[in-house]
Amino acid sequence: MRSIPLHSSAHSVLIDITQRVQTELEQSGVGEGVCFVHVPHTTAAVVVQENADPDVPHDILATLERLVPWQGPYRHGEGNAAAHVKAALVGSSVAIPVHEGHLGLGTWQAIFFCEFDGPRGRQVHLQVVAAI
Amino acid sequence: MRSIPLHSSAHSVLIDITQRVQTELEQSGVGEGVCFVHVPHTTAAVVVQENADPDVPHDILATLERLVPWQGPYRHGEGNAAAHVKAALVGSSVAIPVHEGHLGLGTWQAIFFCEFDGPRGRQVHLQVVAAI
Amino acid sequence: MRSIPLHSSAHSVLIDITQRVQTELEQSGVGEGVCFVHVPHTTAAVVVQENADPDVPHDILATLERLVPWQGPYRHGEGNAAAHVKAALVGSSVAIPVHEGHLGLGTWQAIFFCEFDGPRGRQVHLQVVAAI
Repeated sequence: MRSIPLHSSAHSVLIDITQRVQTELEQSGVGEGVCFVHVPHTTAAVVVQENADPDVPHDILATLERLVPWQGPYRHGEGNAAAHVKAALVGSSVAIPVHEGHLGLGTWQAIFFCEFDGPRGRQVHLQVVAAI
Repeated sequence: MRSIPLHSSAHSVLIDITQRVQTELEQSGVGEGVCFVHVPHTTAAVVVQENADPDVPHDILATLERLVPWQGPYRHGEGNAAAHVKAALVGSSVAIPVHEGHLGLGTWQAIFFCEFDGPRGRQVHLQVVAAI
Repeated sequence: MRSIPLHSSAHSVLIDITQRVQTELEQSGVGEGVCFVHVPHTTAAVVVQENADPDVPHDILATLERLVPWQGPYRHGEGNAAAHVKAALVGSSVAIPVHEGHLGLGTWQAIFFCEFDGPRGRQVHLQVVAAI
């Protein structure tokens, strides 16, 4: 299992980790298969989305905040219930196909670590599995 | 493929299945790889979230009910359209990295079966894939 | 990596691709493992849901449109921010267990390509990984 350490610099932010995942993938030596990115936190998530226009990550965060506002009728006593709910909606892992040693992402796709309760030190875990 | 039978005891409930998945993982003999948990139902889902505070699962269910209320302008004639939509939002599978024979979950992470239209007999399917 | 070309015939539509994925799976020769379906687009997604009643896909699309309306306070200049947000919520990939050479789906489950900004030519990518 490979790990990538991160530091999120804001309360809510999407961090493009595509290049760092690609670097780890190359070190795995897998040519054809699947690369898994897992977030071992419960107030953060991971998503594949567009990185060409920074307004796209902005709109994703703003819409999540509209649907699951930070202040709300939550019971969880730590005050960050919204971050848990957002993480549950977006998800804790993504699977990216690997082709010819590269992440099989579309032209506009990037892998984003999603921070919903930062700033914090964080990490993502990777496993790369080979196809036959 | 391995299966875990479940019985959900309420209409909407999150059931912690981490220990049962870990037991199946150990029987697979895989040390490094990925463990997949798939829900073969369309009104249930699976999510990785915090299990330390039962208010977190409560807040997830309550927020989903606020966003996708049971009663609403749905067409599906069986009366459980909201459960299908919630399942689509949360997702039918999770991928957990496996490291040294254990689920590579974070300190606060657990695997929850998400029942949105219970109580019912249910099951989850597992496949464990080895990394090179 | 295998590819399936698609053409979406409406702005928002769920397209059942189960049979096409099963055909590709059979050509892979894998008997036990996991089949990954990845959408290389940022305004489309993939989900496992019921295909018996076409009202279920309808209710999913209608609820997503209610939660993330096409017209809204978005910044993204191309006018399709809602499609990006919907794709982020539903997800870019699914993992389906493979058992005895078949997709290990439940009785009512199908794999749907989710178009949120069509009509367009699209594709999905597949990788099949064998369990030990």
